[in-house]
Amino acid sequence: MRWRVRVRIMPRQGILDPQGQAVAHALGSLGFAGVAAARVGRTVELALDAPAEADARDAAKRMCERLLANPVTEDFVVDTAEALA
Amino acid sequence: MRWRVRVRIMPRQGILDPQGQAVAHALGSLGFAGVAAARVGRTVELALDAPAEADARDAAKRMCERLLANPVTEDFVVDTAEALA
Repeated sequence: MRWRVRVRIMPRQGILDPQGQAVAHALGSLGFAGVAAARVGRTVELALDAPAEADARDAAKRMCERLLANPVTEDFVVDTAEALA
Repeated sequence: MRWRVRVRIMPRQGILDPQGQAVAHALGSLGFAGVAAARVGRTVELALDAPAEADARDAAKRMCERLLANPVTEDFVVDTAEALA
């Protein structure tokens, strides 16, 4: 069975996020008031073959630990897993 | 009132996503079987001051249109909006 698993990887709280600061600054320059802060992370959508949703989520978690996320600077969440077929 | 609004920006379907292809290939090389495809996008978390959730979501949508997303190559979704304080 195939699953679409969505993983969200964000800079850890307390870690400097220059990309987010640049976004917040640029939004202010464009006239958007009320932007207190911005943080920029990544979303990875995986199409995975696995017998069950728990297996797909577990595989995605291990992929984050091995490759997708930097454990020193980033946190990750396996956000959604939905059956594709 | 302050809101945390999360926006997800992904390469459009049908647009080549070399970063996603690299991720899928690297996962295979690391021994993860069953990865059919990967797509890599961005998540932007905004801390926004707005009177109501609908205003915060609407502001985030306009920020995507003006700055955060490339309308030619990317789709965006205003994913969640939650009250911070």
